[in-house]
Amino acid sequence: MMKIDIERLKGDVLDLAKIGKDEDHGLYRMAFTEADMEGKRWLADRIEAAGLLYEMDGAANVFGRIEAGKAQTILIGSHIDTVPCAGALDGALGVLTGLECLRRIEEEGIELTYNLEVVAFSDEEGRFGGLFGSQAFCGMISPQTLQQQNDLDGRTLEVAMRDCGLDPLKSLEAHRNAKDYHAYLELHIEQGPVLTQMQREVGIVESIVGLQKWMIRIRGEANHAGTTPMELRNDAFMGLADFAHELPRILEENGTVNSRATIGKAQILPGAPNTVPGLVEFSLDVRDASEDALYEIMEAVYKALGAICRKRNLRFEYEVQSEIKSADCDSGIIEKMERSAVAQKMNFTKLLSGAAHDAQIMSTFCPVGMIFVPSKDGKSHTPAEWSSWHDIEIGANLMLGTLLEMNH
Amino acid sequence: MMKIDIERLKGDVLDLAKIGKDEDHGLYRMAFTEADMEGKRWLADRIEAAGLLYEMDGAANVFGRIEAGKAQTILIGSHIDTVPCAGALDGALGVLTGLECLRRIEEEGIELTYNLEVVAFSDEEGRFGGLFGSQAFCGMISPQTLQQQNDLDGRTLEVAMRDCGLDPLKSLEAHRNAKDYHAYLELHIEQGPVLTQMQREVGIVESIVGLQKWMIRIRGEANHAGTTPMELRNDAFMGLADFAHELPRILEENGTVNSRATIGKAQILPGAPNTVPGLVEFSLDVRDASEDALYEIMEAVYKALGAICRKRNLRFEYEVQSEIKSADCDSGIIEKMERSAVAQKMNFTKLLSGAAHDAQIMSTFCPVGMIFVPSKDGKSHTPAEWSSWHDIEIGANLMLGTLLEMNH
Repeated sequence: MMKIDIERLKGDVLDLAKIGKDEDHGLYRMAFTEADMEGKRWLADRIEAAGLLYEMDGAANVFGRIEAGKAQTILIGSHIDTVPCAGALDGALGVLTGLECLRRIEEEGIELTYNLEVVAFSDEEGRFGGLFGSQAFCGMISPQTLQQQNDLDGRTLEVAMRDCGLDPLKSLEAHRNAKDYHAYLELHIEQGPVLTQMQREVGIVESIVGLQKWMIRIRGEANHAGTTPMELRNDAFMGLADFAHELPRILEENGTVNSRATIGKAQILPGAPNTVPGLVEFSLDVRDASEDALYEIMEAVYKALGAICRKRNLRFEYEVQSEIKSADCDSGIIEKMERSAVAQKMNFTKLLSGAAHDAQIMSTFCPVGMIFVPSKDGKSHTPAEWSSWHDIEIGANLMLGTLLEMNH
Repeated sequence: MMKIDIERLKGDVLDLAKIGKDEDHGLYRMAFTEADMEGKRWLADRIEAAGLLYEMDGAANVFGRIEAGKAQTILIGSHIDTVPCAGALDGALGVLTGLECLRRIEEEGIELTYNLEVVAFSDEEGRFGGLFGSQAFCGMISPQTLQQQNDLDGRTLEVAMRDCGLDPLKSLEAHRNAKDYHAYLELHIEQGPVLTQMQREVGIVESIVGLQKWMIRIRGEANHAGTTPMELRNDAFMGLADFAHELPRILEENGTVNSRATIGKAQILPGAPNTVPGLVEFSLDVRDASEDALYEIMEAVYKALGAICRKRNLRFEYEVQSEIKSADCDSGIIEKMERSAVAQKMNFTKLLSGAAHDAQIMSTFCPVGMIFVPSKDGKSHTPAEWSSWHDIEIGANLMLGTLLEMNH
C-alpha cells in the first residue's frame, strides 16, 4: 500500500518551524507579517521543487497543483499563518501533509480522476478577521472587509497587505467557481484531549461545531463592602456567579453531549477588594454541532440572565460578537476515510471539531472532509503544542489513502 | 438647650472642601500631599481663630485644645485626608464638628471636668498604610512602619513626610499616655444605607466590625474552549463561581445578621473568550462584629474552597492581606449618647460600623464613642458623597450633648 515519506514530511515541518521562530517564545508567523510572507516564499520553493504548478492568488493564498486536465479538482490544505507565541503544527501540518500527498502521487505516476491542489489559506488565525483566505476563495469578502478588519494595533488588513507588496483589492478576484471543485480535505491537529483520552491514533471529523460568542454586561451598584448590608446590595459579580452556576444545568437541559460553554474573560468594576462590584463584563462562548441545541441554549441563557437580574435587582445587556454556523463533513468522504483507515488497520474514531477551521468556510462551497491528529495533552496555540511523529505519519497516510479512495 | 451653630459648621465644611478640589473629579487631599498640608494649615488657622491651643505632633496630627487644668482629656476628632476623587464629608465632618463643639463650649464658658481636645489624625485613608495618625498616637508604629509603607507609586511614608518638611522619626514621639485620656469621640458619615433605610436622623455606633481580607488563587488548567469537553476541564473560573454561590450559605450557617462578605476584585487568566480559565485570583473581604462568627466564617470558607477544588480537580492557595479586630464602643458613652438623643428628641438608632475608623485604633487606648450621620444613597469615597445639613446639625448637636453629658 502506498505511504507518505515521514522523513521528508518531518523535514518540511521542522524547516517551516524555523520561520518566525523566537528563541524563547514559540512561533510568530501572524498573517501578512514579514515572517508569514517568508513562510509563503519557502512554501512556493517547496512546491516548485516538487514539480507542482505554483500559484498565489489575490488573497495571497498559495497553491501547488497537479493539472490532470480533469473537470474538477480536489483541494487539500490548511494555513501556515500562526497566532502569536504558537506551536509548529497548527495549520502547517495540514498544508505540508497535502504537499507530501501530492508529491507521492506525482512520484508514483498515479492516473488521476481529479486535478489535485494543495493550498495554504491566508489569515486563518485572525490577526485580522480570521478565515480570510478561505472566505476570499469562496467569494465571501467585500472591499469593506479589507478596510474594516483591524489587527490589535489598529492596522487595517488593507494597509497590512499593501505593506507586504500585495494589492488588497486583488483579493476580491480570488473567488473560485464551486463547480470546478470536487472536495476540500483538511488535516489538522485536534487541539483537544479527546483522541488522547480515547487512545486513538487518528480522528475522522463528522461535524465542526457552531459557535455563539456573546459579550454580556451585568450592571448593579458599586457600594462599600463594609457598610452595605448583604440584603441591600446589587452585586454585579454575584449575578455573574449565579449565572455561571446555572450554566451546567442549561447545557444539560438544552444541549447535547457535545455542548460546550465557557466564561473565559471577565472584568469586574470598580475592582477594589472593599467595594461591592457595580459592573461585570464577561464573555460567553457556547458551541454545539446542533444548531437547534445552540439556539435552545442561548434562549435558556437569556432567560437565566433575566431571572437572576430580576432577583438581584440588576440589569443586563449583551452583544453577539461572533456567530458561526456548524458544518457537517460530507458523509461520502467520511465513508471513504473510514474505509481507508480500516484498510490501513488504523486505530481511529469519529469525532467533532470544537474549533473553527477553513473547512467550515469551505463546507459552504463544496463537500469537505477533515482528519484530526492527536494533540499531546490537548494543547495548541502554545509552543508546547505537539503530536508524535507516529501519529503524524498515521494521519498523513490516512489523507493519502482517502485521496486514492476518492480517485475512482 | 445648647446647640451648635450650623451656619458656622457649614461654612467650615464648604471652605475645607475647596482645598484639593479638582473641578471635575472631586477632592484629592491624600495624606502628605501638598493639598493635605494646606488642609492642615487651614485647620490650624481655624483652631487659632477659635482661641484654642494649637499643636501639631510628630505624626502631623493636628490638635486644638481647651486646657482646663484637669487630669484627663476628652479627645474628639477624625481625619481630613481623603481618598483620591473623594467627597467633602468623610473625615472632615468629624474634625469640624469637634472644632464647632469646642468653640460653643468656649463661647458659653462651660466649666469643664475634663480638658477638651479636637484632633485631625494623619493618613486615615491609607495613601500609605492607613490609620497612621491614630496608631502613632497610641504608640503602635515603629521605624519600620515609616520605611515599609508605600503609596501606589512606591514612595515610602518616610520620603513623603520628609518632602512635606516633616521629620518622619518624630512620629515615634507622637505616642501619648493612655491615663491622660478619658475618652475618644468620633462623628463620621455612615458611608452606608442603613440609617436612610430605617429613616433615622442619626446613629449611635455599638461596635466597629472586624475584618478578614484574603487574596485567594484557584489554579486549574487553561484549555481551548472549543476542543475541551466539559468533563475534561479544570476550569478555575467555575471554581470561583461555585465558591461565590456558597457564600450566602456560609454566612447563614456561620455568621450573624451583620456578617458581610464581598468578592470585589477578580482576575481571570489567561482571559481570552475562547480559553478555559487556568487561574483566577480574587479578593474576599469578610466583616463581622463578632470575632467568633468571623472565625467560623473563615473556617467554612476554607472548607468550601477545599471541597470545590477536590470536586473540580483544582488547587487553591490564599494569603491573609488584612486582619482587623472588631472594637466595641464604650457602654457608658453609648448610654450618655442615648440620653442626650432622647433629651433632644432625635430620631436615632444604634447600629454597627461596617467600615474601619480611627476609633477602632483608639478603642485599644481609651473608651470610645461614635456617632453616625446618614449618607445620601449610602455613598462615600465619591464626589456624590453627601448628607443633608439637617442631619449634619442633628449629629453635631448629639456630639455636643454627649460632651456635656460626660462633663459631670
